[in-house]
Amino acid sequence: MLVATRNPLNLGAAARAMSNFGFLRLRVVNPYQVAFREARSAVGASALLKAAREYKYLAEAVSDCALVVGTTALRSRELQHTLRPLEKGAALVRKQLRTQRVALLFGSEKVGLSNQELSYCHWLLRIPTREQHPSMNLGQAVAVCLYELSRLGRAKLPPLKERAATAGDLERITNVLLESLRASGYLNPRPALAADAKIRRLVRRLHLQDEDAEVCLGMLRQILWKLRSQEQK
Amino acid sequence: MLVATRNPLNLGAAARAMSNFGFLRLRVVNPYQVAFREARSAVGASALLKAAREYKYLAEAVSDCALVVGTTALRSRELQHTLRPLEKGAALVRKQLRTQRVALLFGSEKVGLSNQELSYCHWLLRIPTREQHPSMNLGQAVAVCLYELSRLGRAKLPPLKERAATAGDLERITNVLLESLRASGYLNPRPALAADAKIRRLVRRLHLQDEDAEVCLGMLRQILWKLRSQEQK
Repeated sequence: MLVATRNPLNLGAAARAMSNFGFLRLRVVNPYQVAFREARSAVGASALLKAAREYKYLAEAVSDCALVVGTTALRSRELQHTLRPLEKGAALVRKQLRTQRVALLFGSEKVGLSNQELSYCHWLLRIPTREQHPSMNLGQAVAVCLYELSRLGRAKLPPLKERAATAGDLERITNVLLESLRASGYLNPRPALAADAKIRRLVRRLHLQDEDAEVCLGMLRQILWKLRSQEQK
Repeated sequence: MLVATRNPLNLGAAARAMSNFGFLRLRVVNPYQVAFREARSAVGASALLKAAREYKYLAEAVSDCALVVGTTALRSRELQHTLRPLEKGAALVRKQLRTQRVALLFGSEKVGLSNQELSYCHWLLRIPTREQHPSMNLGQAVAVCLYELSRLGRAKLPPLKERAATAGDLERITNVLLESLRASGYLNPRPALAADAKIRRLVRRLHLQDEDAEVCLGMLRQILWKLRSQEQK
């Protein structure tokens, strides 16, 4: 999944690497240039690029995914998420891919993923590069990540029993939780991006299973209803 | 080592990936555009690109390397060399790198490495891509290969005792052998590219060690001298 990509050539290059390694579902969030679908760099992958789904909001783009992983060139001390090196992270992604969809997020060329965008991620992944020059070209970073995923994919693994909650479920829980926290006075009634992101990250760290997510959502909705009905009295 | 690269942007992208993964010695053989050193795509790697060494002939560019590995998107049935998937090939490259220089060759974007260029290689390496779309972008292929090499490099290994002959030694042996075969009547006296390439590949398959190469060269030179001195009688 490519978020806020500036250069259509990079988008095309990413599509080409996806096709090379057999990952055929590209989603694009808020690209800088609407004409990205004609990128000439998508050699042999123009069908994949044409079939890419475009979204205005990240929340919507990841909503059916059970695991959302962000990529970054930063070191862990600058981040509020768990950071995994590519090889370890890819093994976890692969495990999840046996039963459910996973979104692998790449941010814009200039600044990567914003804190707001990162708050939708369960954890982050980093390609181990040289400390003196960590920042990779977008198309190359995509190619390296997908190579590692396809490398691990050639080993056969048994299917998983557990099913993780989708990003859409988690976002619904986040929203009801935020409303509840505001209604309860725990958070300031006026929405604040930083506070929202903090809660969003917290919900992603819970590793909620499918059925548990449903239960949690039910509980929170009930709480919110109660809080609001008290307000009206 | 980049051979006959057409697009300077790819050259810059390759330089960037080299810098990302800590491979700092770029050699360029016969690039299509002399102005490649200014490629803007070498973000953060302009010093590496400026320090790149340029050669007119591949033989010269690989002469101090003990192992020359070509990259290809083709399948083994179309090739006259041993073909190794990246993961296995990279382990062998890494082993050799403990004591000697290795050249990893990437051909031109349109046609890859020619048969002539391939004849300088000990064996070939292939990134396992999807059968329906095997051909990768040059910069991305470089990034994936160097990622795999640096991944394996993080495991510590003991140094090797054997030292392989350099490509320069092997080429000297090849040339004296070719002259000897012509002088002896085994080959047609007029040089032919296909025959030369066949002999060149044969010499690379011998896995000659450093000292043995010296001995072979001495033997062949003696034979050639003898053949020629007979001609003059």
